[in-house]
Amino acid sequence: MTPESASVHPTSVVSPDAVLGSGVRVGAFCSIHANVTVGDGSFVDSHTVLGAQTADFYADPASYEPKPCRIGPGAVVRSHSVVYAGVEIDAAFECGHHVTVREGTRIAEGVRVGTYSDLQGNLTIGRYARIHSNVFVSQLTTLEEFVWLFPHVMLADDPHPPSDTCTHGPTIRRFAVISARAVVFPSVEVGEGALVGAMALVRDDVPPNAVVVGVPARVVGSTTDVTCDDGRLERVYPWWTHFRRGYPEGVLPEPGSDA
Amino acid sequence: MTPESASVHPTSVVSPDAVLGSGVRVGAFCSIHANVTVGDGSFVDSHTVLGAQTADFYADPASYEPKPCRIGPGAVVRSHSVVYAGVEIDAAFECGHHVTVREGTRIAEGVRVGTYSDLQGNLTIGRYARIHSNVFVSQLTTLEEFVWLFPHVMLADDPHPPSDTCTHGPTIRRFAVISARAVVFPSVEVGEGALVGAMALVRDDVPPNAVVVGVPARVVGSTTDVTCDDGRLERVYPWWTHFRRGYPEGVLPEPGSDA
Amino acid sequence: MTPESASVHPTSVVSPDAVLGSGVRVGAFCSIHANVTVGDGSFVDSHTVLGAQTADFYADPASYEPKPCRIGPGAVVRSHSVVYAGVEIDAAFECGHHVTVREGTRIAEGVRVGTYSDLQGNLTIGRYARIHSNVFVSQLTTLEEFVWLFPHVMLADDPHPPSDTCTHGPTIRRFAVISARAVVFPSVEVGEGALVGAMALVRDDVPPNAVVVGVPARVVGSTTDVTCDDGRLERVYPWWTHFRRGYPEGVLPEPGSDA
Repeated sequence: MTPESASVHPTSVVSPDAVLGSGVRVGAFCSIHANVTVGDGSFVDSHTVLGAQTADFYADPASYEPKPCRIGPGAVVRSHSVVYAGVEIDAAFECGHHVTVREGTRIAEGVRVGTYSDLQGNLTIGRYARIHSNVFVSQLTTLEEFVWLFPHVMLADDPHPPSDTCTHGPTIRRFAVISARAVVFPSVEVGEGALVGAMALVRDDVPPNAVVVGVPARVVGSTTDVTCDDGRLERVYPWWTHFRRGYPEGVLPEPGSDA
Repeated sequence: MTPESASVHPTSVVSPDAVLGSGVRVGAFCSIHANVTVGDGSFVDSHTVLGAQTADFYADPASYEPKPCRIGPGAVVRSHSVVYAGVEIDAAFECGHHVTVREGTRIAEGVRVGTYSDLQGNLTIGRYARIHSNVFVSQLTTLEEFVWLFPHVMLADDPHPPSDTCTHGPTIRRFAVISARAVVFPSVEVGEGALVGAMALVRDDVPPNAVVVGVPARVVGSTTDVTCDDGRLERVYPWWTHFRRGYPEGVLPEPGSDA
Repeated sequence: MTPESASVHPTSVVSPDAVLGSGVRVGAFCSIHANVTVGDGSFVDSHTVLGAQTADFYADPASYEPKPCRIGPGAVVRSHSVVYAGVEIDAAFECGHHVTVREGTRIAEGVRVGTYSDLQGNLTIGRYARIHSNVFVSQLTTLEEFVWLFPHVMLADDPHPPSDTCTHGPTIRRFAVISARAVVFPSVEVGEGALVGAMALVRDDVPPNAVVVGVPARVVGSTTDVTCDDGRLERVYPWWTHFRRGYPEGVLPEPGSDA
């Protein structure tokens, strides 16, 4: 079902059972399956797949019954990205190119996911979380609202690979920041407002507002200790005291308030 | 050549010289070159390229003679993947999205390769090896049967980059496990049944059944020392004593036997 | 504008305002926007996007005015790659599959970029620089001529993430080599001809011709100390004394001369 106001590039293959909202724009060479709903005002860039088949399709195509795939409103899905059946994404989602979002992923409002990031499915992402490029998020992971995962972060889920009875991803509490290339071990909890340094290997829980660095990671201080070396900022953390770009009015705590 | 039982999405471009087996399904927007054979019952997802040109094509297109690209039977090639000319893949291959398999790659039966993994070519992969997401496998690498490479593992090939006379990838012996984000140095041998920890940097050969961790990696014990912290498993390694999902009957050693 | 000598696959969508040079070949399922110029003799593989929209398009499509995207002559852009508006690339560019080149990137002659590499934009790359697979190059980075970045190198730009006033990428001086999986911190300078070891974490400036390894990286010697363990090469660095593959005649220093 495609309203008048939607625009679908003639090269794209959109199932007649897919539901496109008002003003949706679909670029060239997209494949949008029957189980898909795209909310009003969303952009679906070229070469994307929405509602991709889960593994049970390949085992028995005839009896495959795809779960719904719901995206938007106000989404931007950039080119060559793949969103599976069984994914639900709230308003104002934005993702980069070549992103993969597998089944059982539940994404709240205002989340952004960078190019090449791989959401392995069966995970939840809270409001306004931001995931940068090439992040690997394993299954059974919880990202609370306003967390930041920087490029090439890995959230692992298998304590003695390969296992399938013992896997469980980490939990990242609200406003926590995981810096580039860090690895967080299975079932680890990173506390609210904590900061994990670049390339750290986090094997133990991180207390709220702690700073951890190293391989393996150790607590080296509190986020209140972190300074801006070039002096441009008085206070670096909590980051929302100075970084507010892209967040709608009223969504972040007020500078000066408590989170 | 496409049999009646095969189904090719009308948007796909399949060379009349490509050979598709019985029951093959080709999704939308695929490019399947003349040098390609796809075995019976295979799935080729949307936006894939099979039989991609090697570098000599760009040097002199007129005289380019592509080597064969053979996949299947029973393959699942997920969307946006690229398989080069000069690749031979046996039965029951399965790969994720955005995978790249370059020329000179020889893959035995039952191998799986995860999303964004990059097989650089001129390498061999043994039966039922499993390669997870975003793994980098350099040239002149040997993976024996039943090895596991977890997400973001890197198998390197250049001892003093850039060189072209001295490059040689590692050899990973059967049943060995390389955990997430580990790097294995050129020409290193990881012994049968060994376990490399997450984010380890492996510069020296790893004895059979040894456990190595750290940067650089050191032997810290034997796989028999590894326990399941939450007590769900009595014995963690060899992994095939408890993990058997997805392997056909009779393929893995029997629990209780020797590998 | 497409000359007689150019060949565009009939499935591709090429804006009538795009300018394709003589002998350009465009593969299947490409999307080439109006702001694109492709130089003579270039190859554009299947499933690529040239001239992709920048973020301001999604904010207000009606008033979006794309900057030019200029590539070539003699380029090879492999499949599933995305080159943004606002990118300028000189002659003899070559890239792998699934590459992303964002706006504000200025690439000089003879540069190569590997599969899955992510150039975040607002950066400059000098002549004959070579970037291998899955390299992350942050914004405000400078790569001088003849640098090498090996697989999974990360050049970071944010000293206390997330910030937007304090971000600045590293500067890599000519002929320097960054080995696989290394991370270079924001604003760090890696000196001319220096060598960064695999998986090093570089927080401080690296002197010219120094070798640094470790987490965090420390100077362990000079490139003149590096030997070829299997004895095939007498002298390993400067690398151009023995590695000259793919460089046109006269471009590299003569072996025996100074750089």
